[in-house]
Amino acid sequence: MISLHLIGIGTGNPDHLTAQAVAAMNGADLILLPRKGSAKSDLIDLRRHICAAVLTAPVRMVEFDLPVRDATGPYLAAVQDWHEAIADTWRAQIALHLPQGGTLALLVWGDPSLYDSTLRIAERLKRDGLPIDVHVVPGITSIQALTAAHAIPLNPLAGPVTITTGRLLRAQGWPQGADTVVVMLDAGCAFEVVEPQGTTIWWGAYLGMAHQALEHGPLAEAAPRIAARRAELRAAYGWVMDVYLMRREKVRDAQ
Amino acid sequence: MISLHLIGIGTGNPDHLTAQAVAAMNGADLILLPRKGSAKSDLIDLRRHICAAVLTAPVRMVEFDLPVRDATGPYLAAVQDWHEAIADTWRAQIALHLPQGGTLALLVWGDPSLYDSTLRIAERLKRDGLPIDVHVVPGITSIQALTAAHAIPLNPLAGPVTITTGRLLRAQGWPQGADTVVVMLDAGCAFEVVEPQGTTIWWGAYLGMAHQALEHGPLAEAAPRIAARRAELRAAYGWVMDVYLMRREKVRDAQ
Repeated sequence: MISLHLIGIGTGNPDHLTAQAVAAMNGADLILLPRKGSAKSDLIDLRRHICAAVLTAPVRMVEFDLPVRDATGPYLAAVQDWHEAIADTWRAQIALHLPQGGTLALLVWGDPSLYDSTLRIAERLKRDGLPIDVHVVPGITSIQALTAAHAIPLNPLAGPVTITTGRLLRAQGWPQGADTVVVMLDAGCAFEVVEPQGTTIWWGAYLGMAHQALEHGPLAEAAPRIAARRAELRAAYGWVMDVYLMRREKVRDAQ
Repeated sequence: MISLHLIGIGTGNPDHLTAQAVAAMNGADLILLPRKGSAKSDLIDLRRHICAAVLTAPVRMVEFDLPVRDATGPYLAAVQDWHEAIADTWRAQIALHLPQGGTLALLVWGDPSLYDSTLRIAERLKRDGLPIDVHVVPGITSIQALTAAHAIPLNPLAGPVTITTGRLLRAQGWPQGADTVVVMLDAGCAFEVVEPQGTTIWWGAYLGMAHQALEHGPLAEAAPRIAARRAELRAAYGWVMDVYLMRREKVRDAQ
């Protein structure tokens, strides 16, 4: 039997970890740490740093190379194939390092529930007959790091919030009926498709990390400023992860 | 000058606290703890318990009675009046206990960004000219405690999420274009207005607390079961706080 703990670790700041996350890490027999290629080597370094900061028990740590998603072909099919490849990798690592079963921990950026594949990959292993019992430890998401850094509410007073992806925003435009839209997984400035009139944006990159970057303002003037800053940061660090919140105060009044 | 720290403390389990939250609590000159009346005395007890569990510095703690929202009259106007009354209370407590300024901490259930009034009340004090500098420490929300307890993803694969309130769900029905809807601040079973066909619900009450309660299933059969359990729990404990996620797998295909 494998007891799998998917542990949300926040967005890169070890101070984001909860006591529950620290206990789950220390209670594991094995922590698997994914390597995502040289462009994102900062991320494996951060995971190593977090482990060094909070582990007090002698937990075994093993690094493995995460398969890469095929960037050609239809998106959803490529994601499904990618999940299958990751499931195969996990299965091999478990066979190698926990052949008699035990407690396995994976560290997840943000929270395992939000735009993360580990729960879906664990489901695949279960479906394939691996005896696996899944436990989730919530963690601070980049959305929370964004609203905290800007000291703003997520929701308008008594109003709703829509969380979506850069891909969906580009394909479908501003979500129907939404006042406040949070965009994650944006490969590049999908806010440029939004009608800027009456829209304000709060943007952040590398949230919680030492080089956290923030911008905000009316979308018309902030959009080119954010696009330029994002390009600069990407050039400087080799990768960028960002998230933003856009608000239209008057949508509900107009409907 | 008042340095105000709004500290997310999760949903009642001291293990939800982040290292950042613990540091902010210990760094305060004063922690103000709101009393919400006898029906919710569990909540002040939990806050006291959390303080006792994590404070290592001699931080002053002061309890105060939170004004009660007028349950008659139009909702949004009542909320605005309530915020004004709370702002007056904070102002009085600050004048009394931090007349020379200092670092003030408030402990917020969940995360200060999500369906919480403290950021809006701090804005009121700023607008009224109180020199106040606001810092936000994110915390685990009941949404995260819900998805972790059920070990489910929040978003459908590559899909959006809508977070709304029981009041809006009752008034407007299923949000346009949504696959996944999370409902918070529901005074009682607004899921009963949703067409159950093809809808699945994951529900939780007292998430993270010792008497956490969970239910899930197809909405048609789960709705009466949840309504009955919620009524029982409310009778047993005198109050109930719950949250739920509903998913319609096929909405995007049908559009």
